[in-house]
Amino acid sequence: MVKIGIVGGTGYTGVELLRILASHPDADVRAITSRGEAGTRVVDMFPSLRGKYDALAFTAPDATDLTSCDVVFFATPHGVAMAQARALVSAGVRIIDLAADFRIRDVSVFEQWYKQKHACPDLLAESVYGLPEFHRERIRRARIVGNPGCYPTSMQLGFVPLLEAGVIDSAHLIADCKSGASGAGRKAEVGLLLAEASDNFKAYAVTGHRHHPETTQELQAHSKTPVSLVFTPHLLPMIRGILSTLYARITRPEVDLQALFEARYRGEPFVDVMPPGSAPDTRSVRASNVARIAVHRHGDTAMVIVVEDNLVKGAAGQAVQNMNLMFGLPETAGLTAAPVLP
Amino acid sequence: MVKIGIVGGTGYTGVELLRILASHPDADVRAITSRGEAGTRVVDMFPSLRGKYDALAFTAPDATDLTSCDVVFFATPHGVAMAQARALVSAGVRIIDLAADFRIRDVSVFEQWYKQKHACPDLLAESVYGLPEFHRERIRRARIVGNPGCYPTSMQLGFVPLLEAGVIDSAHLIADCKSGASGAGRKAEVGLLLAEASDNFKAYAVTGHRHHPETTQELQAHSKTPVSLVFTPHLLPMIRGILSTLYARITRPEVDLQALFEARYRGEPFVDVMPPGSAPDTRSVRASNVARIAVHRHGDTAMVIVVEDNLVKGAAGQAVQNMNLMFGLPETAGLTAAPVLP
Amino acid sequence: MVKIGIVGGTGYTGVELLRILASHPDADVRAITSRGEAGTRVVDMFPSLRGKYDALAFTAPDATDLTSCDVVFFATPHGVAMAQARALVSAGVRIIDLAADFRIRDVSVFEQWYKQKHACPDLLAESVYGLPEFHRERIRRARIVGNPGCYPTSMQLGFVPLLEAGVIDSAHLIADCKSGASGAGRKAEVGLLLAEASDNFKAYAVTGHRHHPETTQELQAHSKTPVSLVFTPHLLPMIRGILSTLYARITRPEVDLQALFEARYRGEPFVDVMPPGSAPDTRSVRASNVARIAVHRHGDTAMVIVVEDNLVKGAAGQAVQNMNLMFGLPETAGLTAAPVLP
Amino acid sequence: MVKIGIVGGTGYTGVELLRILASHPDADVRAITSRGEAGTRVVDMFPSLRGKYDALAFTAPDATDLTSCDVVFFATPHGVAMAQARALVSAGVRIIDLAADFRIRDVSVFEQWYKQKHACPDLLAESVYGLPEFHRERIRRARIVGNPGCYPTSMQLGFVPLLEAGVIDSAHLIADCKSGASGAGRKAEVGLLLAEASDNFKAYAVTGHRHHPETTQELQAHSKTPVSLVFTPHLLPMIRGILSTLYARITRPEVDLQALFEARYRGEPFVDVMPPGSAPDTRSVRASNVARIAVHRHGDTAMVIVVEDNLVKGAAGQAVQNMNLMFGLPETAGLTAAPVLP
Repeated sequence: MVKIGIVGGTGYTGVELLRILASHPDADVRAITSRGEAGTRVVDMFPSLRGKYDALAFTAPDATDLTSCDVVFFATPHGVAMAQARALVSAGVRIIDLAADFRIRDVSVFEQWYKQKHACPDLLAESVYGLPEFHRERIRRARIVGNPGCYPTSMQLGFVPLLEAGVIDSAHLIADCKSGASGAGRKAEVGLLLAEASDNFKAYAVTGHRHHPETTQELQAHSKTPVSLVFTPHLLPMIRGILSTLYARITRPEVDLQALFEARYRGEPFVDVMPPGSAPDTRSVRASNVARIAVHRHGDTAMVIVVEDNLVKGAAGQAVQNMNLMFGLPETAGLTAAPVLP
Repeated sequence: MVKIGIVGGTGYTGVELLRILASHPDADVRAITSRGEAGTRVVDMFPSLRGKYDALAFTAPDATDLTSCDVVFFATPHGVAMAQARALVSAGVRIIDLAADFRIRDVSVFEQWYKQKHACPDLLAESVYGLPEFHRERIRRARIVGNPGCYPTSMQLGFVPLLEAGVIDSAHLIADCKSGASGAGRKAEVGLLLAEASDNFKAYAVTGHRHHPETTQELQAHSKTPVSLVFTPHLLPMIRGILSTLYARITRPEVDLQALFEARYRGEPFVDVMPPGSAPDTRSVRASNVARIAVHRHGDTAMVIVVEDNLVKGAAGQAVQNMNLMFGLPETAGLTAAPVLP
Repeated sequence: MVKIGIVGGTGYTGVELLRILASHPDADVRAITSRGEAGTRVVDMFPSLRGKYDALAFTAPDATDLTSCDVVFFATPHGVAMAQARALVSAGVRIIDLAADFRIRDVSVFEQWYKQKHACPDLLAESVYGLPEFHRERIRRARIVGNPGCYPTSMQLGFVPLLEAGVIDSAHLIADCKSGASGAGRKAEVGLLLAEASDNFKAYAVTGHRHHPETTQELQAHSKTPVSLVFTPHLLPMIRGILSTLYARITRPEVDLQALFEARYRGEPFVDVMPPGSAPDTRSVRASNVARIAVHRHGDTAMVIVVEDNLVKGAAGQAVQNMNLMFGLPETAGLTAAPVLP
Repeated sequence: MVKIGIVGGTGYTGVELLRILASHPDADVRAITSRGEAGTRVVDMFPSLRGKYDALAFTAPDATDLTSCDVVFFATPHGVAMAQARALVSAGVRIIDLAADFRIRDVSVFEQWYKQKHACPDLLAESVYGLPEFHRERIRRARIVGNPGCYPTSMQLGFVPLLEAGVIDSAHLIADCKSGASGAGRKAEVGLLLAEASDNFKAYAVTGHRHHPETTQELQAHSKTPVSLVFTPHLLPMIRGILSTLYARITRPEVDLQALFEARYRGEPFVDVMPPGSAPDTRSVRASNVARIAVHRHGDTAMVIVVEDNLVKGAAGQAVQNMNLMFGLPETAGLTAAPVLP
């Protein structure tokens, strides 16, 4: 059993970790911290978990010794994980950060977008970007994993095969992305109220989104030519799910894109390349760690559709997938339940 | 033209007043105040109103002289209207309060439920409860109107004909009420987030809701026998609309309930008694001031369904209906647009 | 491994059975029939199941031999199961019917409400009503189980403890029930379109619903005094979930209702009596077989709230729970995943 | 008063025409036909219109003489208007077709996409494409107006200013469009059920949509260089609203795009160019005839966001705008109500 600590367990990624780990055969959640809810029983805050974590209560971060854990998940705002990373790593605890502290390689870029100084550039340097489909072996050995953002996961899964193969114009990528409202987190903001965001649709962060530098960095790592990306996030009137519609100009028209994707993801347990002509919907992956991909071509434009559950493959599920790799467990442990449809 | 001031224009009842008054032939909105948004143009906060109020900006309450208005609407939290009422009334300004300051006759009951001392019991005593279908003539002459709550409007429209006629057991009324999320106001609360409240349904305030004493007070005024009410509000995963399902034990089985309702509301422009066997849906009144009522009978139980738009007949529309009465305008002025369906 | 056949696998209860059984440790789905989709691969119709049932295709009912199955689920319209029951039972196959053929004891009542002659009254007589909380031992031995309707499950879980204890006026029960749209099935009807049923709320079947006689029959079986029920179903603008708000007049005010419910359901794996003062929401059981119950009292009125997922505890999950009992498996096998929240 | 006939009044564009015309000062709806609902009162089918059209009933197409009307709207499936056009036009009746019969100039293209022979190529030749912002003067004089499709309206409003000015690469236009479910019409299809399409998002018609040739034809008319368009429609889990996110490569970087759009649409009553940096949401135009546009630039890519209500500016509202032009009424008559928010 992997002894697990969760820092910041009251947000959506935190409760999603709890949901997934409740069915995980090798997970033992020992501690969960929350500054605001210390003393509250987990099941009193989340009655959906009654019967699953009846003995677990949130504890104050300062009063919680996490050094006896094997792994600590940070389901916190940006900046929390890097502040505690050194102490935990020194104690032999491995870290999976679901925020952005260990995603951006270039400290200055991190500091520009996240408006805070990085606490441990050396640990950042050794940390691994936790997208298993591209960094599986390094994740196995990592002490610190920076779990990818939800949008970046979808954009990378869709663009990387094309960039690796050098078949598109990397300087003019377009990602038109749509996310359910849970992607914004469990925080009280007027714009996310049901009465504001339901029966409504809009683009947002149209002048710049934090997932842009993260995505560009990772795409660039797979491309021999310079990457430039236009990324437009939109807010869907629903809870879970991301659908990214990706466009790129094809530079090598002779290549069979469908075959390219099928070859790239053959054997991947959580990436499903759909048959030609498909249009996957977000509910086909609801509450599941699977991403589904459809590849289309219109003249000299490649159009790739990627769907994922932003809280699972886009956050907590991918984090558990990383944990499985780090601890030598079957990569799919705890992640095998079928998507919830309808 | 009626010169209008709105205090507290950034909530849902405030913006709904603006929407309705934009099409009102005799309305001239002169001022709109907001403590938090002073200086902001109305159309910058609510782009839906671009082209309707381009010259109007929110002003600070303290810096706004409302005494030149004919009428001031208070679309504020409870307690604001009563603090300003005396000064306005003294200046000859009439008041329509969309909060609860002038709804509860018994000051001690008000103070118990709203946790504040009433600022002007004498003005409360002269104020009129603004449900035109029951108090039309008094509203015409009122200096201060307490605009009814959304749930209470629906419960009164459904129960009063039965109570007036003395055909039900008034001591065991049951109101199972369901409201869209806009009824909770435009305030940032986790429980009202799309990711919390959509694709979900629950009862709330199950141990007591502020609309209970208001409703009981008014129902009692129409009943010769003591009224006791069980009232269960529920939160619907949608924006607008209230549907109240009302149950009462019939004490005079010989009475034709359908005929009773049709007679009671004959000629009412905003109460529509549906044909026997009907099940009105909330969208049939969406964005409209109409309430629709269906009357059913199961053995010795009367079951009455009432639908209204909580922001219109349940708030801003009823307030405009009251204004029309107070200023001798056609009662339906500004309130004639057809409901929005689908 | 239990060898399983599913008749009529293209509706919501059918695909929900597939979803649940995909995670069941002892389930082997051997055959699934569909008149309309014979030849279609299951995963082509339901891409959410890709990777779970890749080798399974719908077969024509007439061309499918189900006699080698241990159990056959009927996820069909009413009338299909009774037509095939005798042949299957004779071959030693046990049957779980998710439609109404084996729910109503009185053949004439069945025929009145379902407008067809019952094909096998003798098998109906031996069949068992599949609500494990009340009929567990008989279900274990049953050859044919009539799986309860979704609304009736919720109403029985909430009313039966009160009726058994004789603490309410059984002649005036009120059930104000609200269901997500999946309860109406996966059939093309204008009234169930997103553009009709979302952002909307209504009562329906206000003059009589088929779940009324089923519920009355079962409630009566637990009551020493005559049962009469007013049942109002409503359509919620969401996919899954039933919330039933139940009202009854208390006849023995000295009884502690909370203690009564806790005692009645102690040890039940799928019935969760919430702490006093609770208001469970439907998402707290989403995609799970758990029903949660809260008990309230307003004067001499008992108010009980029951939530369940209509497709799980209200249909496919309860069917699997019944299968587990019938085959000596752990009652919770395949049914332990935590609810999906948010 | 304009004497109006509506053919096919039971779909969403039909009932939306009725809703809008109910508030139109110069509209007199004389007849409304429906093959399936002949004899049904309009208000019995659409209770939202009770009090607005109490005397109006659907009549059988064959039994309805529309020649005394001034104008007939066709809110029908494709193919109906062209079959009746000659008789009506000969009788001096003007026609506004909300279907596709008079949108596509090239008969062979029409016949390829709509799978039927065109009934009156000569009338097609004289008909006018009813987008007032581009064809106002010709619409005033038209006998037959082909009312634009919902998606094409949004794409044209966003692309035409750029094409007219010759500032983008017209050969590589990308339109990533998202529509509410009412765009698919009021027809019973499984894929449009609330239980299928809500809490879900997907692209559809990914291999070709009928609005593609219509849009290309019109865009080409405004472009000196050849137009090629990638158009991806998506289905939003909501009722009303289209948001189109348009991308194009800028060829003349020195041009101020914001100024270009403001100049192009100056004085237009129904096109609102938002301030720089804006992200209009669909609810800002809900139930209104206004389209709002925001212009952005990312490097050498222009990104234009257009929102409209697909049933108003995308269908019935634009049709009424056309009628106003054709009959010399104020262009905004009946179309001035503020959008419904929240």
